[in-house]
Amino acid sequence: MRQEHDGLGTMELPDEAYWGIVSERNKEAFDVGPLTLDDYAPYMRAVALCKIACARANAEIGALDPEKAKYIEKAAWEIVEGKLKGNFVVNIYRGSGTPANMIVNEVIAHRANELISGDKSKGGIHPNTHVNMCQSTNDLIPTAKEIVVHDELGKVVEATKYFAQVLRQKQEEFKDVIKMGRTCLQDAVPMTLGQEFGAFAHAAERLAKRIAVEQARWNQSCIGGTCVGTGMGCMPGFRAVIDKHLSDVCGRPIHTEEDLFDGMMATDGLVIAHAHLQALATLVWKVARDIRLLGSGPRAGFGEINLPAVAPGSSIMPGKVNPVIPEMVFLSTDRVCSNHAGLVAGVLSGWLELGTSSGVPIKSFIESSDLLCRTMRVFADKCIKGITANREHCLAMTEKSTSLATMVSALFGYEVGTKIAHIAIDEDITCKEAAKKAGVLPDEVIDELFDINNLVEPEKMEALFAKYQNYRKV
Amino acid sequence: MRQEHDGLGTMELPDEAYWGIVSERNKEAFDVGPLTLDDYAPYMRAVALCKIACARANAEIGALDPEKAKYIEKAAWEIVEGKLKGNFVVNIYRGSGTPANMIVNEVIAHRANELISGDKSKGGIHPNTHVNMCQSTNDLIPTAKEIVVHDELGKVVEATKYFAQVLRQKQEEFKDVIKMGRTCLQDAVPMTLGQEFGAFAHAAERLAKRIAVEQARWNQSCIGGTCVGTGMGCMPGFRAVIDKHLSDVCGRPIHTEEDLFDGMMATDGLVIAHAHLQALATLVWKVARDIRLLGSGPRAGFGEINLPAVAPGSSIMPGKVNPVIPEMVFLSTDRVCSNHAGLVAGVLSGWLELGTSSGVPIKSFIESSDLLCRTMRVFADKCIKGITANREHCLAMTEKSTSLATMVSALFGYEVGTKIAHIAIDEDITCKEAAKKAGVLPDEVIDELFDINNLVEPEKMEALFAKYQNYRKV
Amino acid sequence: MRQEHDGLGTMELPDEAYWGIVSERNKEAFDVGPLTLDDYAPYMRAVALCKIACARANAEIGALDPEKAKYIEKAAWEIVEGKLKGNFVVNIYRGSGTPANMIVNEVIAHRANELISGDKSKGGIHPNTHVNMCQSTNDLIPTAKEIVVHDELGKVVEATKYFAQVLRQKQEEFKDVIKMGRTCLQDAVPMTLGQEFGAFAHAAERLAKRIAVEQARWNQSCIGGTCVGTGMGCMPGFRAVIDKHLSDVCGRPIHTEEDLFDGMMATDGLVIAHAHLQALATLVWKVARDIRLLGSGPRAGFGEINLPAVAPGSSIMPGKVNPVIPEMVFLSTDRVCSNHAGLVAGVLSGWLELGTSSGVPIKSFIESSDLLCRTMRVFADKCIKGITANREHCLAMTEKSTSLATMVSALFGYEVGTKIAHIAIDEDITCKEAAKKAGVLPDEVIDELFDINNLVEPEKMEALFAKYQNYRKV
Amino acid sequence: MRQEHDGLGTMELPDEAYWGIVSERNKEAFDVGPLTLDDYAPYMRAVALCKIACARANAEIGALDPEKAKYIEKAAWEIVEGKLKGNFVVNIYRGSGTPANMIVNEVIAHRANELISGDKSKGGIHPNTHVNMCQSTNDLIPTAKEIVVHDELGKVVEATKYFAQVLRQKQEEFKDVIKMGRTCLQDAVPMTLGQEFGAFAHAAERLAKRIAVEQARWNQSCIGGTCVGTGMGCMPGFRAVIDKHLSDVCGRPIHTEEDLFDGMMATDGLVIAHAHLQALATLVWKVARDIRLLGSGPRAGFGEINLPAVAPGSSIMPGKVNPVIPEMVFLSTDRVCSNHAGLVAGVLSGWLELGTSSGVPIKSFIESSDLLCRTMRVFADKCIKGITANREHCLAMTEKSTSLATMVSALFGYEVGTKIAHIAIDEDITCKEAAKKAGVLPDEVIDELFDINNLVEPEKMEALFAKYQNYRKV
Repeated sequence: MRQEHDGLGTMELPDEAYWGIVSERNKEAFDVGPLTLDDYAPYMRAVALCKIACARANAEIGALDPEKAKYIEKAAWEIVEGKLKGNFVVNIYRGSGTPANMIVNEVIAHRANELISGDKSKGGIHPNTHVNMCQSTNDLIPTAKEIVVHDELGKVVEATKYFAQVLRQKQEEFKDVIKMGRTCLQDAVPMTLGQEFGAFAHAAERLAKRIAVEQARWNQSCIGGTCVGTGMGCMPGFRAVIDKHLSDVCGRPIHTEEDLFDGMMATDGLVIAHAHLQALATLVWKVARDIRLLGSGPRAGFGEINLPAVAPGSSIMPGKVNPVIPEMVFLSTDRVCSNHAGLVAGVLSGWLELGTSSGVPIKSFIESSDLLCRTMRVFADKCIKGITANREHCLAMTEKSTSLATMVSALFGYEVGTKIAHIAIDEDITCKEAAKKAGVLPDEVIDELFDINNLVEPEKMEALFAKYQNYRKV
Repeated sequence: MRQEHDGLGTMELPDEAYWGIVSERNKEAFDVGPLTLDDYAPYMRAVALCKIACARANAEIGALDPEKAKYIEKAAWEIVEGKLKGNFVVNIYRGSGTPANMIVNEVIAHRANELISGDKSKGGIHPNTHVNMCQSTNDLIPTAKEIVVHDELGKVVEATKYFAQVLRQKQEEFKDVIKMGRTCLQDAVPMTLGQEFGAFAHAAERLAKRIAVEQARWNQSCIGGTCVGTGMGCMPGFRAVIDKHLSDVCGRPIHTEEDLFDGMMATDGLVIAHAHLQALATLVWKVARDIRLLGSGPRAGFGEINLPAVAPGSSIMPGKVNPVIPEMVFLSTDRVCSNHAGLVAGVLSGWLELGTSSGVPIKSFIESSDLLCRTMRVFADKCIKGITANREHCLAMTEKSTSLATMVSALFGYEVGTKIAHIAIDEDITCKEAAKKAGVLPDEVIDELFDINNLVEPEKMEALFAKYQNYRKV
Repeated sequence: MRQEHDGLGTMELPDEAYWGIVSERNKEAFDVGPLTLDDYAPYMRAVALCKIACARANAEIGALDPEKAKYIEKAAWEIVEGKLKGNFVVNIYRGSGTPANMIVNEVIAHRANELISGDKSKGGIHPNTHVNMCQSTNDLIPTAKEIVVHDELGKVVEATKYFAQVLRQKQEEFKDVIKMGRTCLQDAVPMTLGQEFGAFAHAAERLAKRIAVEQARWNQSCIGGTCVGTGMGCMPGFRAVIDKHLSDVCGRPIHTEEDLFDGMMATDGLVIAHAHLQALATLVWKVARDIRLLGSGPRAGFGEINLPAVAPGSSIMPGKVNPVIPEMVFLSTDRVCSNHAGLVAGVLSGWLELGTSSGVPIKSFIESSDLLCRTMRVFADKCIKGITANREHCLAMTEKSTSLATMVSALFGYEVGTKIAHIAIDEDITCKEAAKKAGVLPDEVIDELFDINNLVEPEKMEALFAKYQNYRKV
Repeated sequence: MRQEHDGLGTMELPDEAYWGIVSERNKEAFDVGPLTLDDYAPYMRAVALCKIACARANAEIGALDPEKAKYIEKAAWEIVEGKLKGNFVVNIYRGSGTPANMIVNEVIAHRANELISGDKSKGGIHPNTHVNMCQSTNDLIPTAKEIVVHDELGKVVEATKYFAQVLRQKQEEFKDVIKMGRTCLQDAVPMTLGQEFGAFAHAAERLAKRIAVEQARWNQSCIGGTCVGTGMGCMPGFRAVIDKHLSDVCGRPIHTEEDLFDGMMATDGLVIAHAHLQALATLVWKVARDIRLLGSGPRAGFGEINLPAVAPGSSIMPGKVNPVIPEMVFLSTDRVCSNHAGLVAGVLSGWLELGTSSGVPIKSFIESSDLLCRTMRVFADKCIKGITANREHCLAMTEKSTSLATMVSALFGYEVGTKIAHIAIDEDITCKEAAKKAGVLPDEVIDELFDINNLVEPEKMEALFAKYQNYRKV
C-alpha cells in the first residue's frame, strides 16, 4: 500500500492502483450502483485526448517542462488505447465532471511517474500541478463531451449502414414476393415483400446520412475558458495554440466555441444529438415489430415470413419458436428511448454558469449508442439474414383480398369499385370473381385489372390507366 | 365598463365580467395557449368548495360578518354548479395557484355583491378582505388539489366499471368461441374468445377497485397553514373548526394534514395517483391494440373478429373499414402517458416551502382523467359492443395449429410432443393427423387428446391427465 | 338542414356547415376532449395547400375539368387564409389522417359548389370524385406534415431570434455589472452579468440557426404514392407534374421522396425535428430558472436582479412580488418536453406500410411550436426587458468571495491559493485581506491581483500572467 | 468441457458452468450490453423460490420423485442464498422470461446432479423434465415478478425509514434555528430550519408507509395457468396445493390470481408500483435540490447551511467545496424517473395472452429500487448527518425581510401591511424600523409583532391575534 494526502487528509492506496487519493475518496463515498467510469471507455478516452492536447500546448508556450509533457502524453495514450482499463473505479453516479477529470489526472500522473522512475509516486509529475495545470473541469469536460458524441455517432453511422445493407440484400431476395400491403392493419393494396424491406433499408440509409451530418457538428472546444468562461488562470498564449493541438490529437479540425460562457453553460445540443439515436431506435423498433408481426403464426397469424430459430422456444410447447431477436430489439430500443428522458432531466440539471453534460447525459449517450450498434448487428446477423418468405401464402392472401377493387374504383369510379368489393365480401369470393359475376366490365378487362403482377409496379399501372382513362372523366 | 384598482394601478373591466382587476392583469399578461381555467371546471369547483368552508369557519369564529358569509357562500355554490362558467379567463400556463385562488376570490366577491345590491361593485364584499381573508394560496390550493384528485378518480372509477361491464357482456357472448391463444405473437394453445375478453374485463374491474382505494386517500387539508405552514395570519379558533366545515361541504371526512409544512411542500402523491391513470391507460391501450390485431384483415390478417364501421374508411380503397376507435384510443391514452412525464416535471418544480400542484400537475391530472373517462365510454359503446366473432375461422385456425402437441408433450413427454409437432410442420398437416400418422398413441387416445373442447377448460384437462397420468413418471 | 348520404346511410347537416357527412360522423363518434382540428390551423392550411397543387396537376394532365379545378383552388385558398375556420369540427383524438383529409375535401367541395351555384350542394363538385380524386390519405397527409413542420419551425426561428435580441440588449445594459460566477451553485470566479445574458443570447442565436437548418430539410412529398407507395390509382402523368405545382403553391422547392414506401412508413424525422423544439425548451427553461434564482430575495436570496411586477403577488403577504413569468415558462416548456414523449409514442404507433404522423405527432408538434413562440415573446417582453440589476450588491458579494484566491493559485501555485482561501474562510474576511495578513505576496501585487475589474476580462488576466509568470514553473 | 444437446444441435460447455446448452445459446446470441441476469440477483432468487414450491407441490401430488424433489430444492436454495452467482450469464436484453426460467432450470438441474453424483451431467435430473416439469415461463415469471416487487419494496421501506430518521435528527438539532421561509423563491414568512427538515422527514415517513401498503399487494401467483391461463399440461391436483407451498417458501400468504388469463396478460400493476419509487425519487431529489440551494455560497448564495466536504472540490479553485452528494442524488433519481418511461414502454410491449414483465420492467424495477436504497443511505450518512447551520446568518436574513409585514397585514389590514412593506423596501430598512417610522402602531405593539420568536409558532401567533383581534373586523 502506498500513502497519499490531500486537503482532507491522508489515505492508503493499493500499490497497483494508478488512481490516486481524490479518486479513492470518490470511490469510497459513492457506492450507488454496479457501473463505474471503466464501463464508459469512450468518455475516459476523450478526456485523455484532451489531456494530450493540453500538455502539448502548455509545453509549446513554455508553461510545462517538455520532458514532463512527453511522459504525460505517453501515459495518456495508454488510456486512449484502453491499456489502463480497470483504473477508472469511480461510480457513474458520482456526478459532475470533476471525478472524471481528476481520475484521468491521477491515472496519468501515476503512470507517467512510473514510466519515468519505475515508481508511481516518484518522477515529479503531480496530477494537479502538471497534468491538470490550468484546466478546469468546467472547460475540459464539455470538450471531452464533443469528442465522445462525435465518435459515438461515427460508430452508429457504421452500424446503421451495415443494418441497411443486410436489409437491401433481403429486398433483392424478396423482390418478386407479392404480398398484401396493409394500412391501419387492414388489407390495403398489393406490393412486394422486397418493397417493404427496401423501405426499411432506405430509412436506415437515410438516418445514417442524417447522423453523419449531426456527427460533423461536434467539433467545438471550451478549453481555455477555465471555471466559467473568463479564462481565469489560463496561461498566456495557451488559447492561441490549443485548437491546433486538439485538432492534431483528434485528427480533425476542432475550434474554440465562439462564446465560451455559452459553451460551458448550455447542453441543449445533446438533446438533439440523442434524438438522432432515439429516431434510429424508433426505426429499428418498428422494423422488429413489423417483422415479428409478419412472422406471426406459424398457422394462426400473418405467416408471411419465417424467422430463424436462435434458441429453443418454449419450455412447455414443443415446436414453438419465438421471435427472440425482435424481442431483444424492443428491450434495447425502449431503453434508448427512456434514456432520452433521463438525458433531458440531466440537461435541466445544469445551473447558471455550468451545464451538466458529465453525469447522466454523457453516460446515457454512450449507453444508447452502444446499445444501438450492438442491437443492429445482432438483429441483422442473427435474424434478418435468415428470414425466409412464404411465397405462396403471401400470394394467396393477396389474391383473395377485397381491396383489389381499388384499381377498379380508380379507373371506373368509386361506385363501381365499391359494388365489386361488397359482392366479394358478401359472397366470400375474390374481387375478380365478383367483378365477373357483376358483369360490370368485359372479362378481358377484368383479367387485366386483377393481374396482381400489374398492381405492384407504378409503370404497369400507369399503362393500364393510359389504356382505360377514357372510362373516367371528372 | 367598470373601473377597479390594485397596488399596480387602475384598469377597466367589462360590465358583465365577474372577474376583477387581478385576473384581468393575469389574462392580459399570459397569452400562451388556447385553454383557460374555464376548461378546468373541476379545479374551479374545488377552490369554490374550499371558499364556502372558510367562509363558514370564519363566520363561526366571529371573524366574518355572518351576512357577508352567507352571500359569499351563495356565490361560491354558483361556481360549484358551473353557473359562472365563462369567467375563469386566465390562461392555464399562468402558473402557480395564485391566479386560481384570486380569480375565484374575485368572481365570488363580484357575484356576492351583485346578489346583495344588484351591482357587482357594491355590497361591501372585497375579494381579499372578505373572501380570501386569511387564506393563502399556499394552504388553499393544496386542499383544492385533494378535492380535485378525489373527485376525478371517482369519475374514473365509474367509467372503468362501465368499460368492464361491456367487456363482461362480450365474454358471455364469446364464451364458446374457440380460438388460438398466442404468446410472443406465436400460436400457443387453445382458449376461448370469452376467456380473452374476460381477462380484459377482470383487469378493468381490478383497476377500478385499486383506483377506488387510491381515491379514498385524498382527504387532507392544509387550510390554516397559510403561507408556509406556520399559520401566520390565521384567525384564532379557525383551525379548530375548519375540518368540520370542509367535511360538511365536501360530504365526506376531511382532515388537516399531520405536518402542514410537508402538506404544502410535497406533491409526490400526485405521481402515484396519476400512475393509476397511467396504468389504466396502458390497459385500455392494450385492449385496443389487441382488438385491432384480432380484427386485422379482413382476409390477409388474423380475422378473428369484426369491428363495427363508424365512418367510411378509405378515401380511395372501397370497402375498407378502418379500426378508427382503437386508433382514437391510442392517441388519447398516449396523451395520458405523456402527461405523466409533464406531471413529474411539474412536481419537480416545487421549491423549498411550496410544492407546485397547481400548474401542470392539476391540469394534467384533469386532462388525463377526463380523456380516460370519455375514451372508455366511446370505446365501449362505439366499438366493443358491436364486435362480432368469426367463429368458424377461429376454430379452423386452432385445429390446424401445431402447438396442440403441447398436450401430448405434457402427458407423454416432451420428445413425443416434439416429434408430432415436427411431422405436422414438415408435412403441413394437423397435429391430430400427424399423431395418427406417427402411430405413437392409439387412435382413440388421439381423438380424445385433440378434441379442442377439452383443451380450453382446466377441469376437462385435469380429467384427461388423471386418466393418462401413468404414462408419465418423472 | 340539408341532407347527405354515404355508404353508411343518410344524415342531416346544418345549412351553414361546409363540412359534410363523413366529417359529421366523425364529429359525432369522437367526443373525447375539448380541442378539434380547428385548433390546429397550420395543419388544415397544409392539407389545403396540397389540395391546390393536386387540383392544378390533375387539370394539367387532363384528368380534371379546369373549371372545376379553378373553383376547388379558390375554396382551398380560403382555408389557407383561415376564412373557413369553424368548419374543422372533428375532435383531435379522431386519429389517423383520414378525417383531416376528408374534412378538407368536404369543406372545399361545399364551398366550391357555393362559389359556383350559391348552393353548397349544387355545382357538380364532389368531395371524393373531384377534390380527393386519386389522392390517398396515406400519401397526402405525410406531405402536409412536411409543410406543417417546415412552417412551424420557421415561426420558431423568428421567435427565437427575437428572444435572443432582447437578451442581447440586456447583455449590453449589464456589461459592466460585476458579479460572482457560480458552478454547482457554489461561488466560483467573477464575471459580468452581461457575460451571463450574452451566453443566454448566444445560445438562443445558436439554436435559431440550427432550427433554420432543420427547417430546410422539410421539403419532401409522397403525393403520387397513393395507398402504400405503389401509386395504385394515380393518374398517368400526375407524378411527373406534381412537384412543380407543390413547389409553386408552397413558394419553395418540394421534391417527391426517393423511396415512397419509406416516405409513407417512416416518421422518425419528427423525433429529430421535435427534439429541436425540446432543446429550445430546455434552454428557455434554464434561462427562466436561472433568472428566477438570480432574482431570489429580495433580501434573503441571491438578490442580483429584480424582475418586473406583472400582477400583485401574494394574496396574503404584502409587497411580495412573485416571478410569475418564469413560472409560466416552466409550465409551458415542461409541456413541450412531455409532448416529446407523446410524439415518440405516436411515432411508434405506425404499423407496416403507414406511419402515423397525423395523430398525436403533428398536433403535439404544433402545440409545442406555438407554445414556444408565445412563451418566448411573453418572457422577453414582460419579464426580461424589465429586469434591473442590483449593481452594488453584486459587486459586494463578489469582493467578499473566497474563490478570488483562484487567481493566486493559478499564478503562485495551488498551495498558496489554498492558504489564502482558508484564512479568509476561517477569519471571515476577504481574500485580499487574508492575502495581506498572510504576507505571502507584496501588497501591490495583492492589490493588482484582487482588482476585480481585471478578473472578468481574459486579456487583462493574460497581461497579469505575463507579468508574473516567472513565479510559477512546473 | 462437457457436451450437451438440444433440439437445435450439440454444444460444448465449460466444466465449471452450471448453466446448460439453452442458456449458452442465449449467451452467445445476445451480446448487447454489459449487464447479465447475474446483476439482477433478486430476480434469480425469486425464480428459484418458485422452483422450490413447484418441486414440493409436484412431489406431494406424486408427479415427481420425492428424492429428486429434495435435490432440486437443495440446489434452488443455493441460488436463493446467492451461492451460484456467476452462472446467470445471459444478457439482460435477451428479452422475455424464457431465458430467465430456463437458466434457473439448468443451473438447478446441474447443481442437483452434482449434489447427487458429483457430476453435473449425471444424477438423473433434467432441466425440462424434472425442474421445469409442467410450468410455463408464462405462469412462472409473473409469479416471480410478484416476489421481486414485494421484496424490493420491502428494502425500499427500510431505507426510507432510515432516511427519515436521519432527517428527524436534524429537525431536533435545528429546531430553534430561525430562518426565512420562501415560496416561489421569494422571501415569505419566518419558520425554523427544524420545521423544514421535519417536513422532509415527515414526507419520507409518509412515503415509507404508503410503500409498505403497496408492498403488501404483491402476493399473487399465476402458477398452474401454464401457457395462457387454461392450465394445459398442469398435473392433476397441482393447483390445489401450490399456494400452500409458495406461501411456505416465501414466508407469507400467496394466492392464485382470481383470473389467470388476466394475471398472465396484464402488467399494469408494475406502473403503479414503480410510481411509488418515482414518487420517492421526486422527494429525495427535492430534498437534495433544496439542501444544495440552502447551502449555496459560501458567501454569494443563501448560505443557510454548510454541507460536509466529501472530496476536494475544484481542480482549479482552492477552498471550493462542491455539493457532490446532492449531485449524485440528482443523477440517480433522474435515472429512477427515466426508468419509469422505459418500464411503461415495456408494459406496452405485452401482446395478447402474455404480458412482458420480464424484460425491461422487472430489471428497471430492480435498478430503481436498488438505486434508491443506496442513494438514500449515502445521502443520509455522508451528507445530511454532517450538515451544520449558520444560525446567525439565518436570523439576520429573517430580521431584515420585508415580508414580516404579513403579520401586520393580517392583524390590521392589508393596507397597513403594504404601507410598512413599501417603506421598508424604499428606504432599505427593516419592517420593524419602517413600522416605527410610519407610526401606524404603538411602539410596544410593534416590538411584539416583530419579535420573530413569536412568528414561527402557531400558538404564539394565535395569542397575538386573540390580543389584537378587535383591531380588525370584516
